[in-house]
Amino acid sequence: MKKIAILGSTGSIGTQTLEVVRKNKDIQVIALCAASNITLLEAQIREFMPKLVTVFEEDKAKELRTKIKDLPVKVCAGMEGLIEAAALSEVEIVVTALVGMIGIKPTIEAIKAKKHIALANKETLVTAGHIIMPLAKKNNINILPVDSEHSAIFQSLNGENTRCIEKLIITASGGPFRGKNREELQSVTLESALKHPNWAMGQKITIDSASFVNKGLEVIEAKWLFGIEFDRIQVVVQPQSVIHSMVEFMDGSIIAQLGNPDMKLPIQYALYYPDRRPLSGKRLNFVKLKQITFEEPDIETFLGLPYAYKAGIQGGSMPTVFNAANELAVAKFLHKKINFLDIYEIISYAMETHKWISDPTIDEIFETEKTVYEMIESRW
Amino acid sequence: MKKIAILGSTGSIGTQTLEVVRKNKDIQVIALCAASNITLLEAQIREFMPKLVTVFEEDKAKELRTKIKDLPVKVCAGMEGLIEAAALSEVEIVVTALVGMIGIKPTIEAIKAKKHIALANKETLVTAGHIIMPLAKKNNINILPVDSEHSAIFQSLNGENTRCIEKLIITASGGPFRGKNREELQSVTLESALKHPNWAMGQKITIDSASFVNKGLEVIEAKWLFGIEFDRIQVVVQPQSVIHSMVEFMDGSIIAQLGNPDMKLPIQYALYYPDRRPLSGKRLNFVKLKQITFEEPDIETFLGLPYAYKAGIQGGSMPTVFNAANELAVAKFLHKKINFLDIYEIISYAMETHKWISDPTIDEIFETEKTVYEMIESRW
Repeated sequence: MKKIAILGSTGSIGTQTLEVVRKNKDIQVIALCAASNITLLEAQIREFMPKLVTVFEEDKAKELRTKIKDLPVKVCAGMEGLIEAAALSEVEIVVTALVGMIGIKPTIEAIKAKKHIALANKETLVTAGHIIMPLAKKNNINILPVDSEHSAIFQSLNGENTRCIEKLIITASGGPFRGKNREELQSVTLESALKHPNWAMGQKITIDSASFVNKGLEVIEAKWLFGIEFDRIQVVVQPQSVIHSMVEFMDGSIIAQLGNPDMKLPIQYALYYPDRRPLSGKRLNFVKLKQITFEEPDIETFLGLPYAYKAGIQGGSMPTVFNAANELAVAKFLHKKINFLDIYEIISYAMETHKWISDPTIDEIFETEKTVYEMIESRW
Repeated sequence: MKKIAILGSTGSIGTQTLEVVRKNKDIQVIALCAASNITLLEAQIREFMPKLVTVFEEDKAKELRTKIKDLPVKVCAGMEGLIEAAALSEVEIVVTALVGMIGIKPTIEAIKAKKHIALANKETLVTAGHIIMPLAKKNNINILPVDSEHSAIFQSLNGENTRCIEKLIITASGGPFRGKNREELQSVTLESALKHPNWAMGQKITIDSASFVNKGLEVIEAKWLFGIEFDRIQVVVQPQSVIHSMVEFMDGSIIAQLGNPDMKLPIQYALYYPDRRPLSGKRLNFVKLKQITFEEPDIETFLGLPYAYKAGIQGGSMPTVFNAANELAVAKFLHKKINFLDIYEIISYAMETHKWISDPTIDEIFETEKTVYEMIESRW
């Protein structure tokens, strides 16, 4: 029996994780956590009967307590509740599917409590990879990637020595604006940015995909997960989203992972690693597919990628600035307060004006985020 | 120090194996064997200083003895000499790169002497897989595939449980006659059949590639190497020869091995498995490549493939008939005694008229080959 906690169970990855649980009778959900969607959370509780649930928003937690007073389920709230769920003694694997830097502290506590981490929260490694990876090594736990690109690399490696890696090739769909130039991006709408050609995902990540910020965050995450420097991480646009990423070894051999886009695969792979379990779903048919195409990413137009490399190479607190600036910029774009290209302007300005910290503590990372937010709010 | 014997050192795989040896100072060549090309063999002896060499043709062996009488190298001859080289006590890995069924007996003796086999001889598993694979298992030795397709599958598996395989996808370039119909094949010349679009190989395998017999032999070999039944082995035409083959797992995930066509990679991978070593050479550039395309193989025209499946599914002595009939037919085509489509007619007739043996011994396999040869010689 695999005993798991899901942080972010009402989001896109969370609900798909529960779909995987539904199909595999040997996974038990011990804890569920959500930000505020207690309607969905209640349904999940009644189906999966966890021992503990956490609602981040205090009054929503109170409301939930009333709704499920017929059940023997402990309801916690706030960061304290997230940490309690992540470090619960029975839990073996923590699925961190929270959006944003809120995932960092619970992840650290889960690692200290020797839980394996199924990591779907990009911010954790992007901002605190220099703290998380040594901590995971020290506690001898696995960081199991749950997004499709890093899972593809992880599956392609399948235990091969990372010292044999010549480079990582991370594929990108190109997003809804592939082929557009800077001028055309000036007038794109929120609605068009939310139309991802291949993947159904949350709103924030869909915008990040359109801006290539998501790919940039993945590059930084890959550096930490696999210990590969930025000059050996290449991004290639592969518009059909069929090759999910690749590893080139020092003998020139390239191992790639392919499949129809389905997040349940990386989720299930992480939960059962190093084993595979059956997973139903549409199989890739190469004859019907006919072709897989490749393009160079347009880094003159989609500045999310070069900014990410710049932030990643500088390291320290700079990836936090890149991420925080983007996070608030996307929120503003989702509320139609700024236009699409302003996202790049905000990131660029935040990075230029930031007072760099070479080896930030967790507190300094959060302090950096706060400072970036305040600066942006004061200007935009 | 890896100590190897190369059976077939003057052929295409043999000389490329020696190129790999040249670049890796921790491989020692203990034995070299060739059919008759003693000029090249002498040069190889002087460079690699093996302890024993075997020339299959007796009088050529005699000639070589005179040529290298200044060297402390034992020169053997015939099948006895091949077996002596394959089972030599110091040898750890035997590279079986002989062409034809001549490779079977030395391979069996090498396995019995507990040598790992770097297998480049297709006939061994195609005709005697039912004997070789249990023998290898019993002696706890690895059969390490050296052709690009099986190496690709082997690399894609990299130790994953073969019970998790849903299907194998073997890629085919389509050969020089891809897109031609039966009528057009009637008048193709030997010269055009020898022009492989992507791979520089020996003449026999180049013709087999044009007829799809080679792909058929690979399908039968894959069945034995990986223990996968024929209904779960698919052939897909991938004309750029960039994806060398793939494994689809029961969770829908596909792992593929890609690279520029270079036989030195599978050779080196087999010699160092499970480790990888650096190998210089042109790297695959996806942006320059632009696309990878896929087609269904035309099994109405290229009968090599359906005949192979038929022979493989029937099993027993039938794959030997398929292989032997093709071998003699290709020899006749290379001597311009028959035209291209006669290859299929000869295979088909041989299979139809064969008295099937369900579980042939090694002697019966050779007897079957002889009978097929005699029948063909009497009719064509």
